[in-house]
Amino acid sequence: MKIRPLQDRILVKRIEAEEKTASGIIIPDTAKEKPMEGNVIAVGPGKQTESGNKIVPTVKDGDRVLFSKYAGTDVKIDGEEYLIMREDDILGVIEG
Amino acid sequence: MKIRPLQDRILVKRIEAEEKTASGIIIPDTAKEKPMEGNVIAVGPGKQTESGNKIVPTVKDGDRVLFSKYAGTDVKIDGEEYLIMREDDILGVIEG
Amino acid sequence: MKIRPLQDRILVKRIEAEEKTASGIIIPDTAKEKPMEGNVIAVGPGKQTESGNKIVPTVKDGDRVLFSKYAGTDVKIDGEEYLIMREDDILGVIEG
Amino acid sequence: MKIRPLQDRILVKRIEAEEKTASGIIIPDTAKEKPMEGNVIAVGPGKQTESGNKIVPTVKDGDRVLFSKYAGTDVKIDGEEYLIMREDDILGVIEG
Amino acid sequence: MKIRPLQDRILVKRIEAEEKTASGIIIPDTAKEKPMEGNVIAVGPGKQTESGNKIVPTVKDGDRVLFSKYAGTDVKIDGEEYLIMREDDILGVIEG
Amino acid sequence: MKIRPLQDRILVKRIEAEEKTASGIIIPDTAKEKPMEGNVIAVGPGKQTESGNKIVPTVKDGDRVLFSKYAGTDVKIDGEEYLIMREDDILGVIEG
Amino acid sequence: MKIRPLQDRILVKRIEAEEKTASGIIIPDTAKEKPMEGNVIAVGPGKQTESGNKIVPTVKDGDRVLFSKYAGTDVKIDGEEYLIMREDDILGVIEG
Repeated sequence: MKIRPLQDRILVKRIEAEEKTASGIIIPDTAKEKPMEGNVIAVGPGKQTESGNKIVPTVKDGDRVLFSKYAGTDVKIDGEEYLIMREDDILGVIEG
Repeated sequence: MKIRPLQDRILVKRIEAEEKTASGIIIPDTAKEKPMEGNVIAVGPGKQTESGNKIVPTVKDGDRVLFSKYAGTDVKIDGEEYLIMREDDILGVIEG
Repeated sequence: MKIRPLQDRILVKRIEAEEKTASGIIIPDTAKEKPMEGNVIAVGPGKQTESGNKIVPTVKDGDRVLFSKYAGTDVKIDGEEYLIMREDDILGVIEG
Repeated sequence: MKIRPLQDRILVKRIEAEEKTASGIIIPDTAKEKPMEGNVIAVGPGKQTESGNKIVPTVKDGDRVLFSKYAGTDVKIDGEEYLIMREDDILGVIEG
Repeated sequence: MKIRPLQDRILVKRIEAEEKTASGIIIPDTAKEKPMEGNVIAVGPGKQTESGNKIVPTVKDGDRVLFSKYAGTDVKIDGEEYLIMREDDILGVIEG
Repeated sequence: MKIRPLQDRILVKRIEAEEKTASGIIIPDTAKEKPMEGNVIAVGPGKQTESGNKIVPTVKDGDRVLFSKYAGTDVKIDGEEYLIMREDDILGVIEG
Repeated sequence: MKIRPLQDRILVKRIEAEEKTASGIIIPDTAKEKPMEGNVIAVGPGKQTESGNKIVPTVKDGDRVLFSKYAGTDVKIDGEEYLIMREDDILGVIEG
């Protein structure tokens, strides 16, 4: 089973906390909005603008991304948890 | 009797909870906004933009879709319950 | 006496609850926003856009429409109650 | 003394409650926003759009109009009470 | 000393309450937003639009204008009180 | 050390209350938003619009400006206090 | 490990309070929103507009910038704390 996100939505597999420490990203334990890390599983075709254009997302399948803790909506597909969020909720791509 | 949705609205038949478990999607029991699953019954012609264009919806009749729990408005047609929502409330299309 | 709605406004004659049951639409008794049914009596010429275009409404006189319970403003003309709402408050057209 | 409304504003002389009953419009006594009836006295030249166009109002002097109860601002000119409202607050024109 | 208003701002000298009664405008004593009367002292060059146009204000120096009671910001220049407001806060121009 | 404001931001040196009395501007002691006076120290290059244009600010270095009391953000540079605000927070330029 | 910010986001390394005093910027201890100082580490490619253009950020790697205290989201990369914020949260660039 597969999810094809609509518009500018992105399907993300969250990376667990242990894995995060390993990769060097540590989420500080404060009251602030905490960023999260995940892998992009599927990318929507892009948001359609009023003028009929499509804004193609700049992230792609396999990208490792940072996003806000409260971004998106949880879904479970075949027993696995995923997140569907708008591309705008993604803060950046982790490289290297 | 048939409903023809206006603009970018989509008529959706919700899939019951039992069926959902069968298809592999399990809605986690948290305080978060829970996605829901349904079948697209009818699709509006698309939203008219200020410049006179029409943004044709990318979902079509028969698509199996994920949407937020609180999306849309309930309607009962010939004793059956449906949902009318905007295309923007649909998170993704389930394939396979 | 006649009302000519302005812009994208629609004059609607609400269909009473009894009639609604007859037509097969039953409004579920929940806390959710309840859709309503009515007949379109008069349609405005359409909203004027910033660029000088007019977005002509897609509903027409005689259409049977679904709308939200709290849509529009009540008016009484020659002792009869009507509703004036924006076309955007209309969810769909009932056919057949 | 005369008021020349600016932009898309309309100067309206409210029709008193007694007159309203005579004309057949009865405002239902509910908690809902109540429409009101009046005569258009003066019409602004129209709203200037970002692109430099002007959206000329579609109501004209002498039109009998319906508007929301809380629309506009009261002014007294030479001892007479008037209302200045935006054209968008006018629901429709009463004909016949 | 002189104030040159920026963008679509208008410098207005409020007309005192006594003078208002003389001119025939009486502000009704209600809970509603009360319009006020004043003379235009200086007019900004106009708001710059996104497309690079300028929307030139339609009021000019010397115009006698009606505005909402809470419009604008009070300033005192050489001991005299003035108001700086956006042109959009001006309801109409009083003629004759 | 120098601050180069971004976009449509303006760096302003507030004029102290004593100096203000001298120049003839007296801020009335009311609950209303109080305008303030200052000198423009640096001006951003202008806001970039969606269409790729730049809206060049109409104030320039050395202008004496009026602004709202709560406009902008305080910064201290080399022991001196300044304000960084958007050009839109500036009400007018004081001349003569 | 590197973060590539998306859209108009900027990766900033905050300059510590001690260093700030040295550089001459002192954050006043008030209830007001306090600006902060930092170095730009990475800059996104720019926000995509509705018309398909890209608004390239005007700050660049190495710029020393002022921003609001509550701007952006904290992230820790390889044990170092950074901030990801939108370019619009940056007030100005510190020169000299």
